[in-house]
Amino acid sequence: MCRLRNSRLVHASFCVVTECQVKGIVTSRSSVVVLKRRPRGPVQPEDFSVEAAPVLDPAEGEVLVAARYITVDPYVRAMLDDPSFFGSPVPLGGVPPGDMVAEVIGSRAAEFPEGALVVGRLGWRSHAIAGCAALRLAGMHGVPVPTELSLLSSSGLTAWFGVTEVLRPRPGETVVVSGAAGGVGNIAAQLARISGARVVGIAGGPRKSAFLESTIGLTGAIDYKAVTDIGAEIDRLCPDGIDAYFDNVGGPLTDAILTRIAVGARVVLCGEISQYDVLGSEYRPRLGPIADQRATMTGLLVSDFVHRYDEARKRLAGLARSGTLKPTEDIVEGFTMLPTAFVGMMRGDNVGKRLVKV
Amino acid sequence: MCRLRNSRLVHASFCVVTECQVKGIVTSRSSVVVLKRRPRGPVQPEDFSVEAAPVLDPAEGEVLVAARYITVDPYVRAMLDDPSFFGSPVPLGGVPPGDMVAEVIGSRAAEFPEGALVVGRLGWRSHAIAGCAALRLAGMHGVPVPTELSLLSSSGLTAWFGVTEVLRPRPGETVVVSGAAGGVGNIAAQLARISGARVVGIAGGPRKSAFLESTIGLTGAIDYKAVTDIGAEIDRLCPDGIDAYFDNVGGPLTDAILTRIAVGARVVLCGEISQYDVLGSEYRPRLGPIADQRATMTGLLVSDFVHRYDEARKRLAGLARSGTLKPTEDIVEGFTMLPTAFVGMMRGDNVGKRLVKV
Repeated sequence: MCRLRNSRLVHASFCVVTECQVKGIVTSRSSVVVLKRRPRGPVQPEDFSVEAAPVLDPAEGEVLVAARYITVDPYVRAMLDDPSFFGSPVPLGGVPPGDMVAEVIGSRAAEFPEGALVVGRLGWRSHAIAGCAALRLAGMHGVPVPTELSLLSSSGLTAWFGVTEVLRPRPGETVVVSGAAGGVGNIAAQLARISGARVVGIAGGPRKSAFLESTIGLTGAIDYKAVTDIGAEIDRLCPDGIDAYFDNVGGPLTDAILTRIAVGARVVLCGEISQYDVLGSEYRPRLGPIADQRATMTGLLVSDFVHRYDEARKRLAGLARSGTLKPTEDIVEGFTMLPTAFVGMMRGDNVGKRLVKV
Repeated sequence: MCRLRNSRLVHASFCVVTECQVKGIVTSRSSVVVLKRRPRGPVQPEDFSVEAAPVLDPAEGEVLVAARYITVDPYVRAMLDDPSFFGSPVPLGGVPPGDMVAEVIGSRAAEFPEGALVVGRLGWRSHAIAGCAALRLAGMHGVPVPTELSLLSSSGLTAWFGVTEVLRPRPGETVVVSGAAGGVGNIAAQLARISGARVVGIAGGPRKSAFLESTIGLTGAIDYKAVTDIGAEIDRLCPDGIDAYFDNVGGPLTDAILTRIAVGARVVLCGEISQYDVLGSEYRPRLGPIADQRATMTGLLVSDFVHRYDEARKRLAGLARSGTLKPTEDIVEGFTMLPTAFVGMMRGDNVGKRLVKV
């Protein structure tokens, strides 16, 4: 409970900074997951440890939050190596990043009063201190709480900008999405479908194929674990070639796709989950088809679009509320399950966005 | 000498079709260069032979031409293999493609009367029969005859569309061009310079470095044959990274470039001359930097822009007439020198666009 004094709007995109005191912190127990050792090849739950952490008081303009749901994301694997495949490495003893829906349990920021649900990238922590600029209020878009993470945070935003800004599928085009049952892939595949494209999803296992074809209504699904000749299967489902490829996977699959792209195809490099756990050099696909087909290959980093997140959230939430787009969460229970949930996600256990419920 | 009867304009982009007879063909001797055997690795003059060919009469709407200048182009090397690296292979006994400036010596097409100079892709032939749709009149843009081939045909047009449509350099950006002293590269480098970019050209040998720095005014030149650490040299000349790369060369140089691209960089894959003569698999550069830097890599084929060639020729010729852009030809004399001139070009002997004067 804060009393506002001299509240002042600093900037439209900042929060109202207040002078107040946090009273009655409701917890004295806090946990974090830290990186204990760097994985050698496939990441293991034992590469992490759950540790007690002090509960700090928020400073002026900050809040103390208690996590409700936390995401586990493939890009984190790429940050566990040093040098890292992507971004800055998580230091040994450091807390991996993740998006979180959390309840404000202590506030010195009027915009986020106690009891409010907030969303932010606060990492694998049961409790966190956060400044206003790192948070947004949950519940503003009329979607369920877990969907704040599956659709309106990094994964859904990545899919949105990758599809609408880079891939730009046109009605009738053939779009292939790899990792199509994953957190980014399933949203990307649905957005391409909504854009009028024929969408073929690639994922591992019959449960995912059923999800892709029945739940999210793709044109076709390829179970890469079941087929012996993935090229023949792609040919069967994409008889006129591939106009756009949303790549979450990397590796040798890229060659199977690129040799089948149509003239003017677009390829978005979003993730390379097949390569993050591999020791040694990353796989190098042949670039010949890019030149031959006058195709375009573009790297994607969602934070380049940060100034347009609000616009994207409105569109995504609207599609979800109307039932046009079906966000899907894969929820594991228990804060201490974070390492196991993460490792399982890396092994492809999840259908939809994997979250840990705290 | 034709007499026009019932001349009729079929279509604005076609020629005037006439009924007439070609009389008094001025030659009875005609030669062609044919592919005698497929090269194994580096192409040799002995892979070709010069043969006599019959001189045919043009049909209605066609002309008989005698070659004045013929281009030798890197892409031809890629078409000498079967399967070919690019396009359809030149068949054994077939005539390699090339652009030509030629004189009309027999005409059954009023638009191209005897004595006219015409330009077309008529191959390595001393004489050729051509339909009107395959030709344009030389001399329409106020540039010297060889410049019709170096600037206003495939090489210059490839540079134009690659730079202005794909690379789109901005003032102050750093652009790197490989094969920068070659037929496409020198025009591309100049167009990037004219766009206000800092341009670093990569080429082999001190004569080319002098050409790049002194003749066409680039910011810097790298003699890849002279440096021991090309990465360090790129770092020295591109301290803020590379914003755009015009790739004529392919191969391991691509890795040295890609590891130094800036966020949002554009890479145009125009040619891979380093790979055409190599037996076995083409080189595979690492794609990681494309993803990390949210860069864009695009294949280029000039014929995709065929509907805009006239516009491009006007611009290019204007830049040449004003002296802003300096087309440079490297001329070898004698029709029978075509194989030798081609092999020398593949080995990097030329500075500027290599032409054979017939």
